[in-house]
Amino acid sequence: MGLFSKDIVTFDDLFLHQLQDVYYAENQITKALPKMVDKTTVSALKQGFEMHLREAEGQIARLKRILDLLVEKAKAVTCPAIDGIIKEANEIADKVVLDAGLIASAQAVEHYEIARYGTLIAWANQVGRTDIAAILKETLDEEYATDDKLTAMATSSVNAKADAVTA
Amino acid sequence: MGLFSKDIVTFDDLFLHQLQDVYYAENQITKALPKMVDKTTVSALKQGFEMHLREAEGQIARLKRILDLLVEKAKAVTCPAIDGIIKEANEIADKVVLDAGLIASAQAVEHYEIARYGTLIAWANQVGRTDIAAILKETLDEEYATDDKLTAMATSSVNAKADAVTA
Repeated sequence: MGLFSKDIVTFDDLFLHQLQDVYYAENQITKALPKMVDKTTVSALKQGFEMHLREAEGQIARLKRILDLLVEKAKAVTCPAIDGIIKEANEIADKVVLDAGLIASAQAVEHYEIARYGTLIAWANQVGRTDIAAILKETLDEEYATDDKLTAMATSSVNAKADAVTA
Repeated sequence: MGLFSKDIVTFDDLFLHQLQDVYYAENQITKALPKMVDKTTVSALKQGFEMHLREAEGQIARLKRILDLLVEKAKAVTCPAIDGIIKEANEIADKVVLDAGLIASAQAVEHYEIARYGTLIAWANQVGRTDIAAILKETLDEEYATDDKLTAMATSSVNAKADAVTA
């Protein structure tokens, strides 16, 4: 995320910067998901990615509400981590048809988000902003649910299909 | 990881490529951890990073055993995702004083690994390599345990210390 530029001095700065990082990450995710929707050959997965795209839009709106509580104008930050994860996902969307690979990429994204939202909730509680922690918890719950759904799709059918098609 | 180069055609190819990706990732992690060991001001965290470095070396050895089962000579692959995550971690290690930020970076790494090992175990089972799945499960269990320890350290003391020091 470029977490530590010179203006990160206090814990509050760190918290704000991490929020801006995940805001950037969610925006990048909403750009990547439509390619994954186009590419998948499994209708349940297509619907899943579409649903997660709508969820991500809601998650961005939540982050915007939080940033509005904290600062006049949110600064843009970039986040090499999500850029790298999405670069991998895009390579899939560009080149391949293996839905098992698309699910793997989506789960790498989910786990990045789970890590970051988990940290943000702990930090929000630390600085006494339980109101912000509660908003972020809504998103974290959605990310866990999405990850579980992806696991279920992979192990119930998609992996077997990929294996059967290409064996 | 550059998951889908032209030589990824079958599900077995995909599985192998993902193994090589995480092999690259673990090697990069062992290069990043010593900087985090040097930088942290919390002795329990220093010990934790040192322990995880030894664990990562064991995890690399496990992956090497698996790759030796599957191929004559493992190809090098790069993985933009872990490169991005470690770029963030290195920025922290280079610039920062807040141990809370170091833990956040370490947890982003852990979750990337949890996602990838989870996928690899499912894929190993899919292709009937329960022997490989069992080896990978040892690593996944370690990653979950490390993530839990980092959460405990952050929420029991490190976040409060960062907040108090910089308030």
